[in-house]
Amino acid sequence: MGLIVQKYGGTSVGNLERIQNVAKRVAKTYDRGNDVVVILSAMAGVTDSLIEMAHELCENPLKRELDVLLATGEQTTAALLSMKLHSMSYPARSMLGFQAGVRTDCTFGNARILDVGATRIRELVQNRHVVVVAGFQGCDNEGNITTLGRGGSDTSAVAIAAAIKADVCEIYTDVDGIYTTDPNICKNARKMAKISYDEMLEMSSLGAKVLEIRSVEFAKKFNVPVHVRSSFNEEEGTMVVNEDADMERLVVSGVTYNKNEARITLRKVPDQPGIAAKVFEPIAQAGINVDMIVQNVRPGKQTDLTFTVPSANFDEALAIEKKVAEDIGATDVLGDKNIAKVSVTGVGMKNHSGVATRMFTTLAQENINIDLISTSEIRISCVVKEKYAELAVRALHTAFGLDQSE
Amino acid sequence: MGLIVQKYGGTSVGNLERIQNVAKRVAKTYDRGNDVVVILSAMAGVTDSLIEMAHELCENPLKRELDVLLATGEQTTAALLSMKLHSMSYPARSMLGFQAGVRTDCTFGNARILDVGATRIRELVQNRHVVVVAGFQGCDNEGNITTLGRGGSDTSAVAIAAAIKADVCEIYTDVDGIYTTDPNICKNARKMAKISYDEMLEMSSLGAKVLEIRSVEFAKKFNVPVHVRSSFNEEEGTMVVNEDADMERLVVSGVTYNKNEARITLRKVPDQPGIAAKVFEPIAQAGINVDMIVQNVRPGKQTDLTFTVPSANFDEALAIEKKVAEDIGATDVLGDKNIAKVSVTGVGMKNHSGVATRMFTTLAQENINIDLISTSEIRISCVVKEKYAELAVRALHTAFGLDQSE
Repeated sequence: MGLIVQKYGGTSVGNLERIQNVAKRVAKTYDRGNDVVVILSAMAGVTDSLIEMAHELCENPLKRELDVLLATGEQTTAALLSMKLHSMSYPARSMLGFQAGVRTDCTFGNARILDVGATRIRELVQNRHVVVVAGFQGCDNEGNITTLGRGGSDTSAVAIAAAIKADVCEIYTDVDGIYTTDPNICKNARKMAKISYDEMLEMSSLGAKVLEIRSVEFAKKFNVPVHVRSSFNEEEGTMVVNEDADMERLVVSGVTYNKNEARITLRKVPDQPGIAAKVFEPIAQAGINVDMIVQNVRPGKQTDLTFTVPSANFDEALAIEKKVAEDIGATDVLGDKNIAKVSVTGVGMKNHSGVATRMFTTLAQENINIDLISTSEIRISCVVKEKYAELAVRALHTAFGLDQSE
Repeated sequence: MGLIVQKYGGTSVGNLERIQNVAKRVAKTYDRGNDVVVILSAMAGVTDSLIEMAHELCENPLKRELDVLLATGEQTTAALLSMKLHSMSYPARSMLGFQAGVRTDCTFGNARILDVGATRIRELVQNRHVVVVAGFQGCDNEGNITTLGRGGSDTSAVAIAAAIKADVCEIYTDVDGIYTTDPNICKNARKMAKISYDEMLEMSSLGAKVLEIRSVEFAKKFNVPVHVRSSFNEEEGTMVVNEDADMERLVVSGVTYNKNEARITLRKVPDQPGIAAKVFEPIAQAGINVDMIVQNVRPGKQTDLTFTVPSANFDEALAIEKKVAEDIGATDVLGDKNIAKVSVTGVGMKNHSGVATRMFTTLAQENINIDLISTSEIRISCVVKEKYAELAVRALHTAFGLDQSE
């Protein structure tokens, strides 16, 4: 028995039948004597349809109003689940973001949670109510409705779990846990029983879509145990927790890849102070996120500067840099959209040398050339040709001993 | 120039194109130097679909949660209109019921407005903002979302107009004003330039669907001039105002009919104190509204008791009364679903005798038999066979001089 937060994603509440199934699962958890707080996403597809409708009406919809519109999605599922639970004789009660006291800053469309006024939720829970909170939404200091951006319901769930000091925050989704790599490209991928916050942060930022990165930051900050599991079966999923003695002692715990980046290289850039700023300022002004940046040393007073941007921004970024190259006197701008970033992550790396070497050797054995390398304390990423991505992932998965035993 | 409240109904915001048209009309009003507050309904059909969805999910959806669900309808249109106005460079801002301070009692599904905290709306309007309020919804003292029942957006509009002391509350709808009778059955029906609150109250309660009756009560109480007009053209509609010297001096100003009632008669009811309570208590407990009640005097210690109920409740009411009749010793229960209530209304009646006589004579000349009669200070209603309804309306419309001059 305990205080359990359950978050159900868009596919888990994708239609009325699935909402009924969620109701049954909540009821079962409640019947075991647990206190339950549920956080819901909008039905799968609804948020996208609303955004589409807004863009049909006006080219550039005001973000404040877009948030008011989008907030209806989670309002709908929260009301539906609550009435279903009530019809099954469970004392359920929906709460919208403002009612649950989810206070955010006023960055419409991508607001950050400042705090959660947990008093009301706790009161209801103590009276054995099932509280059903609309995820993804909050309210700024002036009472405006805000939304938290893509995957925001994960963040709502973890923030609320932290505020009410829940024993666990269960994230129900359409996959049954966190895998050592993408099971779609590597049949030997293994579901992890546990993963540390830090590893999960790296994996989220590297393209593993299961948990929104901000929710993991929150979980780490407030030490909220997160259980990622499937809403379509009863199996245990993956616990995201503080690094502990129990954890599998693997050097590398996961392999990820991301094909949605493109590479741009400026050749023979004059090696002077202030040059980097000149290269990246216009990119930032265009609202384009730069991911990896690598500067090669060259003999003489010139250097090559390479960086990656999202594929969607490639053409724009390339055009910007062609102008920049002229201004600063770089000889050439090269670009490549057909790249993939392949990464290995693991807290074990902190205490093990030789991980990078093993990664490079493995790729070399498969005749895969490495374009770019970047590293963090618990991650090594290599950019390779896109066509090698799957091969690289499988080879690394085997090389680091992640394959499941048959 | 003035402070104008404009309310647009479901058909007026029925799709994105119509929302654009509403935006243009609001912009035009604003450009003339007026301050504008807009109240919106949900898109036509949306509220019904949401109710249907709720009933598909559970037989008897909890009203609190149904209100949370239904409130999304007006939230959607308010957000859409605001973003459209903004994209046209008008400083628009949406407000939901709770943000606009529409405080109601906690009768979910049919809440009454207690007051409107107009400070925030006034502040915004004084800064030349266009405020777009989601109609039909409010918030009780505990912060729960409530809805106002059918036609509730009219009430929202008039209540907000009263609170901010607007110069006029314009109700945009799909008809172009209030008619002396239903133009669909009487080609001589005439649009009225003005009608008094009291007459409008009677006409609303008698089945004229244009204005929700509670909004008229509000308008009367706070003396808010209401202008009922079409959102599809620029013509002047009908002003609903206090009785004044200007008003057309007609004895009867309108003829209405209602086919959605059914008649039940208990024959030879023992004429004893307490009998009426025994007859009507079980009906009230079943949540059935009784409209007309007529008790005929009969010789001896027995009486006939006749009343009308909504057709939808006829079978249930009849079954209840058959049991009651046994209990109290009435000899017989008769029922008839094929009836219509035909009414004439007019404040002029207060100072004119002979209206009832003219009504009965007119019906007699058409060979229409009268089943029941009931009257108020400014209304006379007769129940006739349903098949005579249209004929009765046309005859009365002519007899009371309401036909338009050709």
